[in-house]
Formats: sequence, C-alpha cells, structure tokens
Amino acid sequence: MRKTTTRLSDGRELIYYDADPAGAVPTPPRRPLPDPRPVPPATRAGTSERRVDRLTGETVAYAAHRQDRTFLPPADQCPLCPSTDERASEIPDRDYRVAVFENRFPAFSGEAGRCELVCFTPEHDRSFADIGEAQAGLVLEVWTDRTAALGALPGVRQVYPFENRGAEIGVTLSHPHGQVYGYPYLPPRTGRELRALAGHRSRTGGNLADELLADELADGRRVVAESTHWVAYVPHAARWPYEVHLRPHRRVPDLTALHAAERAEFPRLYLRLLRGFDLLFGPGQPPTPYIAAWQQAPLGGRGERGEFGEFGEFNELTIGREEFALRLELFTIRRGPGKLKYLAGSESGAGAFVSDVLPETAAARLREVTAQ
Amino acid sequence: MRKTTTRLSDGRELIYYDADPAGAVPTPPRRPLPDPRPVPPATRAGTSERRVDRLTGETVAYAAHRQDRTFLPPADQCPLCPSTDERASEIPDRDYRVAVFENRFPAFSGEAGRCELVCFTPEHDRSFADIGEAQAGLVLEVWTDRTAALGALPGVRQVYPFENRGAEIGVTLSHPHGQVYGYPYLPPRTGRELRALAGHRSRTGGNLADELLADELADGRRVVAESTHWVAYVPHAARWPYEVHLRPHRRVPDLTALHAAERAEFPRLYLRLLRGFDLLFGPGQPPTPYIAAWQQAPLGGRGERGEFGEFGEFNELTIGREEFALRLELFTIRRGPGKLKYLAGSESGAGAFVSDVLPETAAARLREVTAQ
Repeated sequence: MRKTTTRLSDGRELIYYDADPAGAVPTPPRRPLPDPRPVPPATRAGTSERRVDRLTGETVAYAAHRQDRTFLPPADQCPLCPSTDERASEIPDRDYRVAVFENRFPAFSGEAGRCELVCFTPEHDRSFADIGEAQAGLVLEVWTDRTAALGALPGVRQVYPFENRGAEIGVTLSHPHGQVYGYPYLPPRTGRELRALAGHRSRTGGNLADELLADELADGRRVVAESTHWVAYVPHAARWPYEVHLRPHRRVPDLTALHAAERAEFPRLYLRLLRGFDLLFGPGQPPTPYIAAWQQAPLGGRGERGEFGEFGEFNELTIGREEFALRLELFTIRRGPGKLKYLAGSESGAGAFVSDVLPETAAARLREVTAQ
Repeated sequence: MRKTTTRLSDGRELIYYDADPAGAVPTPPRRPLPDPRPVPPATRAGTSERRVDRLTGETVAYAAHRQDRTFLPPADQCPLCPSTDERASEIPDRDYRVAVFENRFPAFSGEAGRCELVCFTPEHDRSFADIGEAQAGLVLEVWTDRTAALGALPGVRQVYPFENRGAEIGVTLSHPHGQVYGYPYLPPRTGRELRALAGHRSRTGGNLADELLADELADGRRVVAESTHWVAYVPHAARWPYEVHLRPHRRVPDLTALHAAERAEFPRLYLRLLRGFDLLFGPGQPPTPYIAAWQQAPLGGRGERGEFGEFGEFNELTIGREEFALRLELFTIRRGPGKLKYLAGSESGAGAFVSDVLPETAAARLREVTAQ
C-alpha cells in the first residue's frame, strides 16, 4: 500500500491509498493533481458543539452547518467519482483506488474530533459486496491506517469506521463510501460497554466479551459463519431484525492490533456476509439497506474523569484498552420484503427495542444466504 | 367520565370512556354491544420473549407474531373506526368517545406486561391537534386511568402512554390513536435516568430533575411556553431536531398524582404545541411526523435487584418514585422541509446523536409557531 497525502483547495486533507491489485509489483508513486476548484467562501467553517444530557449522561453533538449538505445528487454530479476534464469532483485525479478526505460537512472538526469520507472504489455503480477481495483488503488497510492516524489526534476518544448503505438509512450519496468518525468524546454505547466490562472484571475476574463469545460458540445456534481467525454470529440479545457481529477469535482492542493472518482472512468472510445480506429477502428485492460499524477500544486514560456527567461511579472503575474486543457490527433495518423496522415511541422514546425476529431465526436465515 | 369494560370475541379487553362534552350532565350508561366476529384461531397467542444484552445492560423484547400485523389498511377498512352494519371493526359499537383495547399484536402480554391501543376519537380523518380541548381532557383522564390500571398489574415496571404519528415514523394505522405499554422491565432510558437521579441525590442532596428545570427557567432561551402549572421547553441537550418537554412545575411521579388544576390546564397547552408542530416547516408542508410520550416514574421496589444485568452498582442505589419528574416528551424526526433525521451509523451503532438544529434555534422557531 502506498499513501499519498495532499490538500483540497479549501484546505481539507485528501489521502490516496494505492496498491497493485495482485500485490506483487510495487505501486508506482502518485503525483497528486491540484484541486482546480476556487477556494469557496468559508465552506469549511461551521459551528460544532457538544453537550451532555445530565439526565441520561449521553453526549449530543450539534453541527448546524450540516443542514445544507449535498442531498442525493444525480450520478453525473457525484462528488465521490474521479474528476473528469469537464467536471471537478472532491477527488481531483482521474482515477484512484481508495481515497479518503475530510468531510465538507463534518459533525466534528478542528481541535475536537474529525470526520472523514472513505471512497471504497472509483466505480460509482458498485457496492461493497462486489468490489472484490483485493479491494476489500485494501479498504481494511485504510481503516487500520485511519484508526492509527485519528487515534493519534489529541482530542479523539474513539475511532469509528462505518458504512451507511441505502436511502432507507438516510444515505445522501449513492457512490460506495463509508465514513470514519474520530469522536472527541466517549459515545454512549461505548460508555455502557466499558462499564459492563469493568463491572464484570471486578466481580468475577473474567473478561465479559470473551465469555460472551465462548457462550455463543458453545451454544452454536446463532453462529452464522466461522473461519480460522474470525467468527460471525447473531448476538443473543440482538436489537435489529438481522444483526451480525464479526470478531476475531483473539481479543484485540482495535484494527491496528490485528495480525497479518487475521487481516488476510477478513475480506472473504465479510464479502460473504454482505452478499448474504442482499439475498435475505428473496430474489427481486432491492439491495438491503445496512449499517456496518467497527467497535473499537476507546482512547484516553485508564480510570480518568470520563464523559459520564452524573455517572460519577464510572470514575471509580479502572479498565484498560485490552479489555475491549474489536468487532464489526453489521445490521439492517429491513424486517421483511418492503417492510422496515422503525424506531418509534418505544425505541426512540424509552430506548426499549422490540424486535419481530428472534436471533435464532435470523441466524438460521443468515446461514442459508451466506452458504457458499 | 364513565368507564365501561367488555371483551372482544377473542378475549381481549375493550374499555369505553364516555363523557358529556360539556361535562355538565351525567353521562348515560353504555350497554356494550357484543363483538359479532367469530373467535379467530389463536390470533392472540404468539411468542413474546425478552433478553438482556449483557454488554450494554439493555433489555430487548422479541415478538415474532407481530410480523403479520395490519399494515396501512384503506380507510374503509380501518379497524379503529366504529363498526357499521356492513363491517365489524375492533370496536363493536356504532360510536364511542375514547376507546381502549388490548393490542392484537402486542409486544408483551399475559403475565409479562401489557400493550393497549387508545383511540383518541371516532373520527378517522382528524389528528390529535384538532380534537378539541374537551376531548383532549378526556384522553388525559384515560391516560391517567390506564396508568393506574396497568400499574396495578403485578409484572409491570413502567406505564408508558405514547403516540406515534405519521408514516415516516412507521405508523401502520392512520386513525388518530396512541398506545400504552406496560413494560414488564425497566426500559433502558428510565434506568439511566434513575441512576443519574440517585447519583445526584447522593452527591449533592438535591433533585436533578428540579435543578434542570430551574436552570431552564433561569436561562429562558429554550422555554417555549409556560402556564400557571406547566412549562414547555427544549432541553439543553436535545437529541431531536425539534424536541419539547412539557412538565408540571410541581414535581410529580406520574399522571395519577396530578391535581385538578394541573389537569385542567394541560389540554390547551398541549394542543397549542401540537398545532405548532404542524406549522414548523412552513405552509403547504405535510403534517409533521412526531412521537409524543409520557415519561413516568417506574414501579417496583426501592433499591431492588434491577434489570441492569452487568450493572451491579445500580443495586446499591436507593431511590424513591417521588424523585422522578413526570413529563411529556414531544419530538419530530423532520429536520427541514422534505428532510428527515435518520438514525444511521453514529446514532444506531454508537448511540451518539448528531443534530443539525441547535436547541436555542429550535426553541425560537417553536415559540414563533406556537404564539397564539
């Protein structure tokens, strides 16, 4: 992999990741083309603010400038395609393999976090499921590099690479792409997980994540697929109609800690899951909307004063990054052909998920559609 | 108000709430008509199950039988309209004021919780905003009665009256109606709030909910409307584009504790907020989708072994119901004309809300549209 960093005309960083498809010959150096667009008047600015809801301890971020973000442009104006002689996109070059740039409409930026876009392929009409194993392997390297790069920024507490796919999820650009958030605070779910891990360790001496994985493997009914280094399963208390967690057998805190053998095995298994997701609801159905997200160990000190607001008791817990188990969570909001799972009063108001699909039923269906 | 209880042919309870519109003359007794429909083969059964996600402490409910629930029937087949000579709906009578019945497709039922539908009006084409103050007052009485009735069931931990409005929220019946959930467990948000209230009390000796209200009143920028007994404000760390909390000045644990003067004042203020919601995005916009939900004090013992799974520390906290402050939360997922706020990777995966509208901006707009 060869990494080439440049800047767009408004100062945002753009990074090309190049690699020979076969991985055999060295990648030639890239001389990045300049962004031909004029510097826009303060597009990059924008108020970004965060507040803690003291009643729940949850941090909420505000990014009012995002209201005007690009909304489903026609394919010939896609900002994520390579530029052409006629039109300058966000990526000045005529081609790329994987490109990363700072979001023009970030949820966080500057001293307090960072939001990036990751273009998975230059081909507009593909989806992640059909980019091929070599390209998926390159994306994994990019996610790993971004985890290291954003994790080194002083204000970042968690690096969160994710993909939203499908208009039903609210995706505003159809070109295959994902995002990486460098949260400048501990996201609420991560906070809950840390508390659970710390509580379990202090009570039992064991690691909760590893015990849950051992339970899943011993039970077996929710295991969807397994390889030498990875296992994919529907969790015992899944919230979404179809939800798969993909984690390495070996507990590692984040992507940078994966071994070469673990990396090498990931693309094939992940692409199998993604192709299976598109088959879930039978032939002739539109592509399955999904969210895929890497849950990684947070950054920042052990037992430091956290972001919990009223939850003072968290500060008494100490837990190291090594307690956290890296995993990819893949789930869809589609519950049947033409039917979506909406987060209405119970989920959005009370935080209480009601699911129509039992995890064992979901796992059986996922085994069917991912069988090779 | 006169309450008349009967049963549908499959055994589900149906309750009529009648009242003279002027409240002056006594309501005549109602002799409920029998449900003419044959007993269906085991429609009411269905597996309902709940599990705790040990990594987050959140309870998830499963109700696989709900997959086949009624989905946007045409208006002439509405199951919530009164029955006619030609067609038997869920309500056998030719008319009603407010009717409540057990959900045919419940998320919980039997020994473990209860789910009810509340028909706000017999008129199919109305919405809550235009049912009038007398009818809204009757609905408040019904919510109060259901809070008492469901709260008396042995397995119920929290009574949660709510309304989902709009197809964008996933509403499958357009007739004006709400629901009441009698959760057989502590919903996750309530658990977080109890922990915050208990932590604050033990650290400072004060009540967090009352202090937050005092802060809102002293600040004033987010106050939307106020009356003698109630105040409506956008919370400091609102999660949704437009979100209003409506609570009595006096802290009460639930609807059954409201005084007559507090009850009397509620309909006018609430209808004003609802009408304002429909004006938020300018003339000619479709009705605003919204969720409205009553947050009430949970039931069950003080300091008892809770539903927190790994969160053993909760068991050491003791907190009484009187610490909780009843409030109605009203919010929309619409963030602009034709634009919805989707819960994508950050919200659904990491629990981290990113909002495009600052609470102060939302409050200013809400003051405009609710000005009389």
